[in-house]
Amino acid sequence: MSVAASVENTSQRGGPLSKRLLRAFTDEPADRPPFWFLRQAGRYLPEYQRLRRGTPNFLSFCYTPELCIEAALQPLRRYGMDASILFSDILVIPDALGRSVRFVEGQGPVLEPLRDAGEIPTCDIARLDDRLAPVYAAVSGLAKAIPGDTALIGFAGAPWTLALYMVEGQGGTAGERARSWAWREPASFARLMSVLSDAVAHCLCRQIDHGAEAVQLFDSWAGLLPETQFRELVIAPTATIVRRLKAHAPNVPIIGFPRAAGVLYEAYVRETGIDAVGLDAGVPADWAASALKPGCTLQGNLDNILAVAGGAALESETLRILGTLGPDRFIFNLGHGVLPDTPPEHIGRIAEVVRNWSRP
Amino acid sequence: MSVAASVENTSQRGGPLSKRLLRAFTDEPADRPPFWFLRQAGRYLPEYQRLRRGTPNFLSFCYTPELCIEAALQPLRRYGMDASILFSDILVIPDALGRSVRFVEGQGPVLEPLRDAGEIPTCDIARLDDRLAPVYAAVSGLAKAIPGDTALIGFAGAPWTLALYMVEGQGGTAGERARSWAWREPASFARLMSVLSDAVAHCLCRQIDHGAEAVQLFDSWAGLLPETQFRELVIAPTATIVRRLKAHAPNVPIIGFPRAAGVLYEAYVRETGIDAVGLDAGVPADWAASALKPGCTLQGNLDNILAVAGGAALESETLRILGTLGPDRFIFNLGHGVLPDTPPEHIGRIAEVVRNWSRP
Repeated sequence: MSVAASVENTSQRGGPLSKRLLRAFTDEPADRPPFWFLRQAGRYLPEYQRLRRGTPNFLSFCYTPELCIEAALQPLRRYGMDASILFSDILVIPDALGRSVRFVEGQGPVLEPLRDAGEIPTCDIARLDDRLAPVYAAVSGLAKAIPGDTALIGFAGAPWTLALYMVEGQGGTAGERARSWAWREPASFARLMSVLSDAVAHCLCRQIDHGAEAVQLFDSWAGLLPETQFRELVIAPTATIVRRLKAHAPNVPIIGFPRAAGVLYEAYVRETGIDAVGLDAGVPADWAASALKPGCTLQGNLDNILAVAGGAALESETLRILGTLGPDRFIFNLGHGVLPDTPPEHIGRIAEVVRNWSRP
Repeated sequence: MSVAASVENTSQRGGPLSKRLLRAFTDEPADRPPFWFLRQAGRYLPEYQRLRRGTPNFLSFCYTPELCIEAALQPLRRYGMDASILFSDILVIPDALGRSVRFVEGQGPVLEPLRDAGEIPTCDIARLDDRLAPVYAAVSGLAKAIPGDTALIGFAGAPWTLALYMVEGQGGTAGERARSWAWREPASFARLMSVLSDAVAHCLCRQIDHGAEAVQLFDSWAGLLPETQFRELVIAPTATIVRRLKAHAPNVPIIGFPRAAGVLYEAYVRETGIDAVGLDAGVPADWAASALKPGCTLQGNLDNILAVAGGAALESETLRILGTLGPDRFIFNLGHGVLPDTPPEHIGRIAEVVRNWSRP
C-alpha cells in the first residue's frame, strides 16, 4: 500500500484530523490531550495472559498477526485510548537480520552476543521483508480493526538500542561491551549502526505502507551514553532515519523516545527532525514545556511505578502533568511501560482523569 | 578530635589552601584543576587484589583500618592524585543500623530486604559509633599517612540510595518496591528517610572529626526518581544533612553526587546548599558550565568505560572536559567508578594529561 493510499484510507474513516492523536502534531487547540500508554497491551491484563497461554514462545506470538491484533485490541476495549500501537517487539529486527533472539521467562530477551566486526550482519532487505511479513500483516489487520477515531502507531527500536542488545546479548547492563567497542573501533561500530539504520528505516516505511499513521523510535538505552557518543550513536542515526521516513511519507509524524537522555533531550529534539518526543518520568515537566515544546509535541510522562502504587498521588501527579504539559501539542502517556503487576483499575483511573480533564 | 583540631592539623601540614583540591572550593584561580577518581582504590590494581586475597569478606575488610588505609594509599603511590578518599562502602551504615549486608562475588551487595514499616530500624547513635569505630579509625590513620598536599575526602551513601538498597535488597533494579512504598505510604517512608538522614549526618560529622577535609554524599540511584520524588527523597534529605554538617563544621566542603539526575541536577545544586556536585558522564559539559557552575564547584565527568577502552578518544575527551569545565572551581574525575577491567596504564595516562594541562 502506498503512502497516498494509506492517507486516503484514514481519510475515508474521517480524515487524519478527526483523530485526536494526530491533531496533537498540529497547532490546532485541543480541549484535552490524547492519551495512550507505553506497553498498554500486555501481562497486566488477564485477557492477555489467557491469550499468551496458547503461544508461550514470545517471538512466535509476535510473528502471528491474529494474536498481535487481538493483544493490541484488548486495552482499547477496556480504556478506549486515542491510539493503538502495533503489538510486537523491538528485537524482531535483530532476529530478522539473522541474530539469534530468545525470550527467557523472568529474565527478558537473550541474544547470542555479537563479538566482533566479522559478525556484523548485512542488511538483506528481501530477507528482512520475508521475515517481517507477519509484522506488516499485523499492522494492516490492526489498521482495519481499530475504531475510526483511534490512530495506529507503528514502532521500531532505534539503532543504538538494538546494537546494545546485539553486542551485550541482553539489556539492563551498563553497556560496557557495546560502548567500549564504539570507543575503540569507531569505524566497525559505525558499520553496525549503518546496517541497523537501514533496517529500521525500511521496516518503519513498510509499517507506514501497511497503515501506521505515526511511528515511534524506541531508544531505551540512550541514557547510558555520554554526550560525544550520544551525538554519534543516538542523534546522528535518528536524524538519518527521520530524513528517510520524511522522504517516503512526509506527513506521518515520528515520535522519538531517547529514554533517560536528561539534558541531552534538548539536543535530540533540536537536531534530529523528529515531530514529537517521549519523556521518561525523570524529565521535569516545567523544563520540558519551556525547553522542548516550541515546535515539538511532547509525550509522557507519568511514573509507571505510580501506576502500580495507585492512591491519591496517582490522581494528583496525573493532574500536575496535564496542567504543565497539556493540552496543545501534548500526548499523555507513562514515562515507561506499564508494569506486569499494575492493577488494571489504576490504568482505568488514569484514563478517566485524562478524559475528564479540560483546558483550565 | 574536634573540627578546630582537625583544621589545625591540616594547617600544620601546610594549611588547607596549600591543597589543590581544597582550593577548588574557593575563587582562587587555578593553573590546572585537581583530580582524583571515583573508586580509585580497587580491583583494577593488582596490589589491591593481593591485599584482598587475605580478607575475602569485603565487610570485614572495610572494618579493618590498616587494610582500608593501605588500599586507599595504593593509587596515590602510582598516580599522585590530589585527593585520597576513605576506603569503605556506603552499606556500612545499613549494616551498622542492624540490617544484614553481605557482598556476593560477581553479584554485588545483598541485603535482607526491609519489608514494611515495622522493620524500620531506629538510629541508635551509640551502636552506630560502636560499629563504625573502625571506619573512623581508618579516617584518622589515612589523614596521618597521606602526603601533605593531598586532601582527605570522607563519604557516605545518601539516604535515598541507602533506602533503595535496604528495601530492594540489592542495587541495579528500577527501585519498584522502594518507590512504590514511597508513593503508597509516604509517612512511613519518611520515617525511614529520617533515620537514614540522622545516621548519615552523624557518620559524616564523625569522619570530619577524625580528619576528613571534605565529604561526598553518594546518591547513586537518584536518577530513578521522577521530579516529585526527587524533591522529597533526594533534595530535601540532602539539604537537611548539609545544614547539620555546616552547623558542625562550616568550612568543610560537601560534594553531592546525585547520579543520573539529568535536568534535575540544576534544582539539586540550587536547593541543597552543597558546595560541589559530581557529574555523571551523561551530563553535557557545556550545559553544566553554564547552568550549574556559578557558585558551585563541579566534579567529573569522563566516561569510565572510555577509561577501559583507551585509545585516542581517551585523551581527546579528557581535554574536551578540561577545556569546558576547568580550571577554576573544577575537580577532574570520572563520571562513575573505575571499572575492574580498567588497564592501570589508562588511569596513568589520564593523570598525565590532567597534570600537564594548563589554562589556555
